[in-house]
Amino acid sequence: MAGSVRSLQCPVPTLTHRQVLLGHGSGGRLMHDLIEAVFRPRLLPADLTCLNDAAYFRVAGFRLAITTDSFVVDPIFFPGGDIGQLAVHGTVNDLAVSGARPLVLSAAFILEEGFPIEDLERVVDSMREASARVGVPIVTGDTKVVQRGKCDRVFINTTGVGVLMTERVLSADQARPGDLILLNGDIAAHGIAILAARGELELDTPIVSDTAPLHTLVEAILEGDPGVRCMRDLTRGGLASALNEIAQSSGVGIRIWEDRIPIRDEVRGVCEVLGLDPLHVANEGKLIAVVAREDAEAVLARMRAHPLGREAAIIGEVVEDARSMVLMKTQVGGFRVVDMLAGEQLPRIC
Amino acid sequence: MAGSVRSLQCPVPTLTHRQVLLGHGSGGRLMHDLIEAVFRPRLLPADLTCLNDAAYFRVAGFRLAITTDSFVVDPIFFPGGDIGQLAVHGTVNDLAVSGARPLVLSAAFILEEGFPIEDLERVVDSMREASARVGVPIVTGDTKVVQRGKCDRVFINTTGVGVLMTERVLSADQARPGDLILLNGDIAAHGIAILAARGELELDTPIVSDTAPLHTLVEAILEGDPGVRCMRDLTRGGLASALNEIAQSSGVGIRIWEDRIPIRDEVRGVCEVLGLDPLHVANEGKLIAVVAREDAEAVLARMRAHPLGREAAIIGEVVEDARSMVLMKTQVGGFRVVDMLAGEQLPRIC
Repeated sequence: MAGSVRSLQCPVPTLTHRQVLLGHGSGGRLMHDLIEAVFRPRLLPADLTCLNDAAYFRVAGFRLAITTDSFVVDPIFFPGGDIGQLAVHGTVNDLAVSGARPLVLSAAFILEEGFPIEDLERVVDSMREASARVGVPIVTGDTKVVQRGKCDRVFINTTGVGVLMTERVLSADQARPGDLILLNGDIAAHGIAILAARGELELDTPIVSDTAPLHTLVEAILEGDPGVRCMRDLTRGGLASALNEIAQSSGVGIRIWEDRIPIRDEVRGVCEVLGLDPLHVANEGKLIAVVAREDAEAVLARMRAHPLGREAAIIGEVVEDARSMVLMKTQVGGFRVVDMLAGEQLPRIC
Repeated sequence: MAGSVRSLQCPVPTLTHRQVLLGHGSGGRLMHDLIEAVFRPRLLPADLTCLNDAAYFRVAGFRLAITTDSFVVDPIFFPGGDIGQLAVHGTVNDLAVSGARPLVLSAAFILEEGFPIEDLERVVDSMREASARVGVPIVTGDTKVVQRGKCDRVFINTTGVGVLMTERVLSADQARPGDLILLNGDIAAHGIAILAARGELELDTPIVSDTAPLHTLVEAILEGDPGVRCMRDLTRGGLASALNEIAQSSGVGIRIWEDRIPIRDEVRGVCEVLGLDPLHVANEGKLIAVVAREDAEAVLARMRAHPLGREAAIIGEVVEDARSMVLMKTQVGGFRVVDMLAGEQLPRIC
């Protein structure tokens, strides 16, 4: 397998810092290095060449997927959502982009002593509503309490199990030159909404998180079993990190076109003022699909017919490139390198 | 169903405290009330009459179990184990006592900024060894980082999926008068080991945690499909909370005999000095099985033949009792009421 060869050629990175940094949770380069240096060699199977949003396992011939995510977002209530809803959507989305129909969720709470029961009830109500709306039950749970000052209000882990919807292998190492990159809508709203909710911004128009469950959009994408290579939801590290992971895992280059990438004016404005690259800002209701060129228009049409894909666009293409670079053709002409987020931009956005 | 009737008769408890208390994580009465008042009415199916250590779901006719647990133990390294090993054993045990053979685990880390990478490596090494020893792979993970002072070094969530080993319904509402209660060994070592590791005790002989994976012991118990009604591992809240949950869920009384309950002299000694009831102290390698009287001797023999059940004993029996009380016949004669832990005895023992 090409993937195995690449992973053999890729030495385990050396961590230059011997303490955990905020950037180790960024979804960018530092987190990638931490996973490759600490977690992957110890915990994951040696033949696993590429990390996806969920892992697959079999029960009596059925292919299942499992994914886990802890939510530590700060603040826990923000325009457009809250930590409870995010915890349901996030795990549903990780299953969906892995090609799995979500079946059940677990929910585990770590609570800080002194956290108001009212806020807990509000969070749990929101989880219940989100779980009912997506039609995926929360079937089991856990509650831990730590002393005041030993966590921050509430952290929630959700883990989800789903059944694979396709016999295809959807994986970040499946992109091939010629494939096209589809995106379902405007980027960077979630991260900016969180930033604003922290009171670090004064905005005339409030920016609202895009948090949404993407499982029915994914079902629309996969309808008729088109040539979909992989999908990613664009959370920590944003569009840039997802594209770089795919380029590196598949050993290909990616070219995107800035003028095709939807972004709200107010979001772009905040990014410009603060010097943030919207390609690095987190989303909670956005995905990309890498699709065989011949199927891309049909998939795009189905995405646009879905409420969460009305602004879907073909934003780029996969090319041959031994350096696995992601380049963006800018609106002023010329190309610029799109790299993974290097440090930490906005901690605790999910 | 008897269970439904009971749950209808049982009103949702009113929480007298409007803030989260350490006792809400104790495994005792306060935690029970928090779950019944906040989590169960919002998140869990209305027809679920009794909470067990795992939930069941079906995939194409196969019965699977899922369970989740977050680990916040303090300190993270202690005599006999560490947070990593505990996180593997704890979830394997919750699946096992639910009658499920563990298939896969997920692992999600919340790290505090500044946590030494060396300690993280030691924890992850320990998880790898535990996972290899029990033969259950960790297949997917997640890493979040929060600012210094917003968590305590490292919290780990593990979630596990397993396949049911028996067609029987193993559930806390299945105990019947005449059943016997089997325990696999000496109690209360884990909680006391954690207490000692916090430096709150000066001991001549170190007390070591009993953390162990119980899945092969459970396979031995279930061999030949005997009349096992339910099993519980005796973590937070200890033996007393497990017995009370079973008595209340099944609408029966339980009588135990103090002189049959194994406990190490040094553990008993510490409990006496500190005024702790060993029945309330947590274990991480102990379980009880409620077994039909006619099968109990055979199950006991199989437990004793297993390395983790050499000191197994029949410690009590299920009786008719409309008040669902747990009573212990003490060594000095007479009975005393064994209640659920009321407040918080030892926070963060798992």
